Amino acid sequence: MSTHSFDAALHLTPDFDAQPDQFVGHTHPDWWNMVGPFGGMTAAIALHAVMSHPSRLGDPAAVTVNYASALADGPFKAVARPVRTNRSTQHWVLEMRQADAHGVETVVLTGTAMTAVRRETWSATDMPMPDVPHPDAVPRPSLRTGAVKWLQRYDMRPVHGSIPAKWDGSAASEDPLRASLTQLWVRDDPARPLDFESLMAMADIFFPRIWLRRSTMVPVGTVSLTVYFHGGKEQLAASGDGYLLGQARGQAFRNGFFDHTAQLWNEAGVLLATTHQLVYYKE
Amino acid sequence: MSTHSFDAALHLTPDFDAQPDQFVGHTHPDWWNMVGPFGGMTAAIALHAVMSHPSRLGDPAAVTVNYASALADGPFKAVARPVRTNRSTQHWVLEMRQADAHGVETVVLTGTAMTAVRRETWSATDMPMPDVPHPDAVPRPSLRTGAVKWLQRYDMRPVHGSIPAKWDGSAASEDPLRASLTQLWVRDDPARPLDFESLMAMADIFFPRIWLRRSTMVPVGTVSLTVYFHGGKEQLAASGDGYLLGQARGQAFRNGFFDHTAQLWNEAGVLLATTHQLVYYKE
Repeated sequence: MSTHSFDAALHLTPDFDAQPDQFVGHTHPDWWNMVGPFGGMTAAIALHAVMSHPSRLGDPAAVTVNYASALADGPFKAVARPVRTNRSTQHWVLEMRQADAHGVETVVLTGTAMTAVRRETWSATDMPMPDVPHPDAVPRPSLRTGAVKWLQRYDMRPVHGSIPAKWDGSAASEDPLRASLTQLWVRDDPARPLDFESLMAMADIFFPRIWLRRSTMVPVGTVSLTVYFHGGKEQLAASGDGYLLGQARGQAFRNGFFDHTAQLWNEAGVLLATTHQLVYYKE
Repeated sequence: MSTHSFDAALHLTPDFDAQPDQFVGHTHPDWWNMVGPFGGMTAAIALHAVMSHPSRLGDPAAVTVNYASALADGPFKAVARPVRTNRSTQHWVLEMRQADAHGVETVVLTGTAMTAVRRETWSATDMPMPDVPHPDAVPRPSLRTGAVKWLQRYDMRPVHGSIPAKWDGSAASEDPLRASLTQLWVRDDPARPLDFESLMAMADIFFPRIWLRRSTMVPVGTVSLTVYFHGGKEQLAASGDGYLLGQARGQAFRNGFFDHTAQLWNEAGVLLATTHQLVYYKE
């Protein structure tokens, strides 16, 4: 059994006797963010429930999770319920719950997933990997992560749009198309062969666009995350434990929410996933 | 009461005595696509269940729907269940069901929504409206729509990347960033003041990117659609019944699925919604 911290955090135990399609798990201290676990890890756990389900047909194609609240440190229930199985696709409803201080279970995550048996077809990419230096040529900055443990779980090498060095409220780039653009190489630390769950987690690797945009650390929280998987098992296996290039750009920031659109390529330039998220911000 | 075809198709009747959070509706012939209703209309109905629910808090911020199958002509049930209500946000689980030929109910749509009370904050747009001619200066092509009735429900004025005139399998543009790019003006026909439901529907206005990319009409079907609403009631009201500019671009086409990322601005250039979808294709 893997002793990698990602696998430890992902660990789920079937609890089908208590409720069909239900698993139980426990938050892991290695993946702590500011007020709960790293959202990418939580999303990966929700997907892991699908991957672990005995009725699963095919591999993930589309996954959406919505964060109803931060998870508290402790046990949780993860439900992945197959509600419709077609010939080559399957639709899932996802839910995570935790007991509150009064012992009452509340929903902490909602979501949906679509898995599919993929067949070889005509293929193309209209979002080519940007021309960036090889990860070996990009220094890995040392991060003072403090209590934000999950940042130590990734080897991140920013190519463009790294986290502001000074939180001075200075204006971002004049060019709106680059003002909230980040490009970075990323892989698990220690390295770990890519799978759907770790790709799901890395889809949430980008620090909040609004921090880049404003050089101001306003309070934020992702509320909805969607990942489309363009890589199947073969492409993921071919990616091995190499770096992924992630690129994210904000689109609209208005009245408490902003979105970003993002892509993840492997080192060979294969677009493995596209992802979007909506993020709450204060002020 | 409005006699607009969009409102007629949207019509839902609460059926809370039969099941909490459940509405009943009926498909409308005006909105027929090839093998079921226009997916944008179905998504709008799912959102309308949220908008019609007596417990709703705030306005739509993020909505995801997954199409498990085409709807059959006939009645359907639409469920919008509020599963978590916070101080200013609310999380919803969406489902639509129809009885099959044997009278057994099957799930035809899954989804989630997040509604929120929006407050004025710092705002910006990093995805400015492209510089395109005013809708009055763009001719409206006459469409031979045949049985595809829903195309008559919109006044569409393509600015760039219109549906191929010849289905000759010719290669798309050499520039990947423009190969599957479409820009068009669109509004309801007859005109109708914009609301969240009609904006949701218009997020699905784009013909399949793969048709543009390959000049080949391969069978397709949207499997998942996400819309982030950046415009609140004020921005929607200010848009009135004017045109929206829609822009969509494919990202990856691989092994039976492609995605696109898209934006919708009002005539004044306000980014009202960003949207993404994953589409099944054959061959």
